[in-house]
Amino acid sequence: MSVWKDAVPVASAQFDRKREVLLREAAACFNRRGYHGTSLTEIAKKLGVTKAALYTYVPSKEDLLYYCHDAAMDSALESLHKAASAGTGLQRLTLTLRHYLEMMLGAEGGYVVLLEENAMKPEHMRAIVKRRDRFEQGLRQFVIEGIADGSIVRCNPKLAVFVMMGALNWGRKWYRANGSWSGAQIAHAMTEMLERSVSSTPSPVLLEDPAAVDDAEAIKPEEFPKGRPLA
Amino acid sequence: MSVWKDAVPVASAQFDRKREVLLREAAACFNRRGYHGTSLTEIAKKLGVTKAALYTYVPSKEDLLYYCHDAAMDSALESLHKAASAGTGLQRLTLTLRHYLEMMLGAEGGYVVLLEENAMKPEHMRAIVKRRDRFEQGLRQFVIEGIADGSIVRCNPKLAVFVMMGALNWGRKWYRANGSWSGAQIAHAMTEMLERSVSSTPSPVLLEDPAAVDDAEAIKPEEFPKGRPLA
Repeated sequence: MSVWKDAVPVASAQFDRKREVLLREAAACFNRRGYHGTSLTEIAKKLGVTKAALYTYVPSKEDLLYYCHDAAMDSALESLHKAASAGTGLQRLTLTLRHYLEMMLGAEGGYVVLLEENAMKPEHMRAIVKRRDRFEQGLRQFVIEGIADGSIVRCNPKLAVFVMMGALNWGRKWYRANGSWSGAQIAHAMTEMLERSVSSTPSPVLLEDPAAVDDAEAIKPEEFPKGRPLA
Repeated sequence: MSVWKDAVPVASAQFDRKREVLLREAAACFNRRGYHGTSLTEIAKKLGVTKAALYTYVPSKEDLLYYCHDAAMDSALESLHKAASAGTGLQRLTLTLRHYLEMMLGAEGGYVVLLEENAMKPEHMRAIVKRRDRFEQGLRQFVIEGIADGSIVRCNPKLAVFVMMGALNWGRKWYRANGSWSGAQIAHAMTEMLERSVSSTPSPVLLEDPAAVDDAEAIKPEEFPKGRPLA
């Protein structure tokens, strides 16, 4: 087998991996200093590469913001899809939330950019808003199904999903990878509390010490979708 | 009584009122386009005044960001203070959340800036983080008291407050003043759902239609603290 042929998939895997690292670093910078307060030069410096090297992966800062939002939506929609076959509406809902949180708070950090949608080109913004609407619509559908099958109390599905999305996304702001709780432990504890807010059989107690959750209970990283390669 | 003497409080009230409007507009701009993506010229244009006129109220854009964060903290700590005498820990907690939400989603819009703390001068940032810690500490204390008096289930108070703060602050992102629910109606519905997540006597149903809540039930605007005058 020729060296050339072998090289293709390896190079491609490296490219994807480096692109992932770039997106995670960019998302962290955008969340810390805002889109307008972050330069490509700064991101390159953090990654220890030249700015020119970044252009192999992304044509512009605006596109980088779009790729971050898009990769976060890949994970979100994948979480939804994976939970679709779970037993009750409540189980489908909470499994999605937990997947989404584990992706966002994973050891490598997530792609979620909290604000700054307005900094994207109009067509990129429309594409992201459309995908986010699909995610929220899917969560709402699980709430509706849960009310129908009796696992969720009667409530307003739209408001319930807004409350949950807020609690989830805020995690990106306060979570520190070097804190006393792992991402998986926080995902477990937060999901349990959000579940209780709508469950028709609310648990009598909640987790007192998230650090006591066995990390091995967490959903495995390889279950998560990788960022899509550049087109 | 001299005209001059009369004029002083009136002018001062006008100054305070205009400063409030400025802070609200600035907070909205910062949340929409980020701190670095917003210019004083733009804010002045939105308010229909010259940039020079803004300097009567605020010495710089950085100070404007600080004043927004500070005014939001005034309201937050005032909410905490007002709820301190309510019956149970759970009641103190939910009353604070509802006050805070009504302030943030009030007809005139709130001062809360979601991110961008890092854009402040270090001494301003330290002051805001200190006040926010006091607010979160107060909420945690209500959770601890609620667990002690039996109104709240056993849980991790730190995590519970993080979840609640996320749900609350996210409201600033999705709430539209011209939407189908008023700020007071959303405050009512969100608080009810967050209450259910930790209450030892969770309600069997939640509000299905926030629009059905009588707006008059809401806490009156005059109960809210005004922005503090410039020193």
